[in-house]
Amino acid sequence: MNINFKELANKYQTPYYVYDFDHITKQYEELKGAFKARKSLIAYAVKANSNLSVIKHLADLGAGADCVSIGEVKRALKVGIAPYKIIFSGVGKIDSEIKEALESDILMINVESDAELNRVELIAKELGKVARISIRVNPNIDPQTHPYISTGLHENKFGVDIDTAKRMYIQCKNSSSLDPVGMHCHIGSQLTQLEPIKESIKIVTDLVRNLKAIKIELSFVDIGGGLGIVYDDETLIDTKEYAQAVLENMFGLDITIICEPGRFMVGNAGTFVTKVLYEKVNGNKRFVIVDGAMNDLIRPSLYNAYHKIEVLNDNEEFSDCNLVGPICESGDFFAKNVQLQKTQHNDLVAIYSAGAYGFTMASNYNTRGKVAEIAVEKGIDRLIRKRETFEDIIALEEEFIK
Amino acid sequence: MNINFKELANKYQTPYYVYDFDHITKQYEELKGAFKARKSLIAYAVKANSNLSVIKHLADLGAGADCVSIGEVKRALKVGIAPYKIIFSGVGKIDSEIKEALESDILMINVESDAELNRVELIAKELGKVARISIRVNPNIDPQTHPYISTGLHENKFGVDIDTAKRMYIQCKNSSSLDPVGMHCHIGSQLTQLEPIKESIKIVTDLVRNLKAIKIELSFVDIGGGLGIVYDDETLIDTKEYAQAVLENMFGLDITIICEPGRFMVGNAGTFVTKVLYEKVNGNKRFVIVDGAMNDLIRPSLYNAYHKIEVLNDNEEFSDCNLVGPICESGDFFAKNVQLQKTQHNDLVAIYSAGAYGFTMASNYNTRGKVAEIAVEKGIDRLIRKRETFEDIIALEEEFIK
Repeated sequence: MNINFKELANKYQTPYYVYDFDHITKQYEELKGAFKARKSLIAYAVKANSNLSVIKHLADLGAGADCVSIGEVKRALKVGIAPYKIIFSGVGKIDSEIKEALESDILMINVESDAELNRVELIAKELGKVARISIRVNPNIDPQTHPYISTGLHENKFGVDIDTAKRMYIQCKNSSSLDPVGMHCHIGSQLTQLEPIKESIKIVTDLVRNLKAIKIELSFVDIGGGLGIVYDDETLIDTKEYAQAVLENMFGLDITIICEPGRFMVGNAGTFVTKVLYEKVNGNKRFVIVDGAMNDLIRPSLYNAYHKIEVLNDNEEFSDCNLVGPICESGDFFAKNVQLQKTQHNDLVAIYSAGAYGFTMASNYNTRGKVAEIAVEKGIDRLIRKRETFEDIIALEEEFIK
Repeated sequence: MNINFKELANKYQTPYYVYDFDHITKQYEELKGAFKARKSLIAYAVKANSNLSVIKHLADLGAGADCVSIGEVKRALKVGIAPYKIIFSGVGKIDSEIKEALESDILMINVESDAELNRVELIAKELGKVARISIRVNPNIDPQTHPYISTGLHENKFGVDIDTAKRMYIQCKNSSSLDPVGMHCHIGSQLTQLEPIKESIKIVTDLVRNLKAIKIELSFVDIGGGLGIVYDDETLIDTKEYAQAVLENMFGLDITIICEPGRFMVGNAGTFVTKVLYEKVNGNKRFVIVDGAMNDLIRPSLYNAYHKIEVLNDNEEFSDCNLVGPICESGDFFAKNVQLQKTQHNDLVAIYSAGAYGFTMASNYNTRGKVAEIAVEKGIDRLIRKRETFEDIIALEEEFIK
């Protein structure tokens, strides 16, 4: 990444998110390449970074979209992703979302419970449609990641167990409104161990074969996403070994492999850039206060997540500090007990690996406008989302003051 | 509270926040009444719930505003709060915010560091203004609340120690651009123990007297906010005892007392109402899935906060479950291991005590629109914020798709 953060700060002000679109291209091509021996679809997990221009960039590369709300489906359609490349997942689909997904004729609805399958069947019948169904299997495997982003254990709300899945596939087969076309399994996010993924794929493909034996022939296996990225010093899963593990298990099956990476595509492409306002010392504690805050990037506060941080000045005198924002609570921090050099008013601070689950989780807490988003591609920067103004923030409530 | 949640759900759809404005009135009057022996200003902490109609309601009762960003100052001004009732606090004020605050001629800027005082002095000088200053003292007292909302320890980023404060007051006195008018102290939120508050007020008033001895005469002491509310079975601080503790310490001082309650005013006035989509059982775990999610109310996930929850149906068969939303992560929950009755599709669920730090912290995670906000006053309901649409969400990025 070769981005001039200072130039961008002058041009767009701070704080901002900047995304290196060339890095996204590289990630896409690496993963797509790893599966080249097979029919495959890389369905980008829109929730990681749902900026329309980010999705468009991936769409242009050939990606489909893994969506978890009708809003995400609309984003994908908006930037021109073909309906047959769009999957709609999630444990809590609302009736109106199911209806709209069926009307949009997307590839498949990824069903996560018995009760949901019944709703989809009912709604499809009402619309006179046949709903293409994938069922999310919960393999009860510990993905060894943060509990909040672990999804493949029975204690998690996601998917259904093998026996329930089997029963649901039979229901699909026997229904004139349902067409069982896929199977889905996703055990968590920021995975750095291949073994749990291998285990889960084995469970899934065994079930695919079992279904085949009873004449339920699926066309798609969605192996989920979750490939980790480097935040600190993680050793990552090798994408070739990953693909190999998947392909081995698929031997003899005529299946299109779907993979739904989110963080892997965009996480390391993004940097959150903020400006130093003040330094202060309370007791023995040094604080560096910047203009970005937890409303812009909540991962440190919510997940206790680590982000590599760099102050962009030439000082060589480092000392321990907390890097914090202006929000009025102690939960508003980017890093605690981190070694940073002495700063001056207006020095820039880069918070790396912020491309995934950064802007998408931003709020207006403390009436702070959402920041600008910038893309850099082949050395050219451009705005991809305007900084929110006070007028934008109050737009939906202003008329009701009486 | 006597609100017909079902009627509101039919009228405004779900999920929604509803606020009982009569409860807010009651809270305001209780606290204002407790200080009736003195000149006092109840400066509502806008960050707790910054809906313009909520602030307007408090403004009509006579409240001022405690603000932590220029956006919040603008909200207060917008609904007609007089500048002389507005305070601007926060550890990270941006130059443009300081400038605008000075130009708006608000009551005072609550300064939280040496470095900030220098910036305010510089900017006031440039504008040819005299900045009215209050200094936030950090008394190094443990408020015995959640670490994220504890603010009165030196390990927190807030305020300055007594000696620094004294030095800063002298700087104010010697500056032609600064006018020291107040002192501020706030040790945390959701406080249920009076003792730490008493201790901190003692420290503050001692300093006020010390300053008086050197001819720095302050007019305002802002005793902060932080009065707790009942989420579960908390025993609260008695407001009369609270006021008494304050007044005792102020004996002989000609000081207007400012109090900045947020949660206390609006917390128990608000309910988040959501609808059941599905029930499912994974392994031995029962999940009730509703249409609201962590993007709407993040307190359970972020602070592990307890909210009283009620399913609005007549079933009498209760069992253990997790109440979760549709968002694709395990961090998306409202309650874990809670006893709730068996539910049906479309049953309503009320999540109480959601008036503070509920909507203000909402995000668009998973491309979910922010929900509608409703006020109920004297039995009459009205919309005070429209539900966000897909078009609203993408408004600032749509034009940049290329």
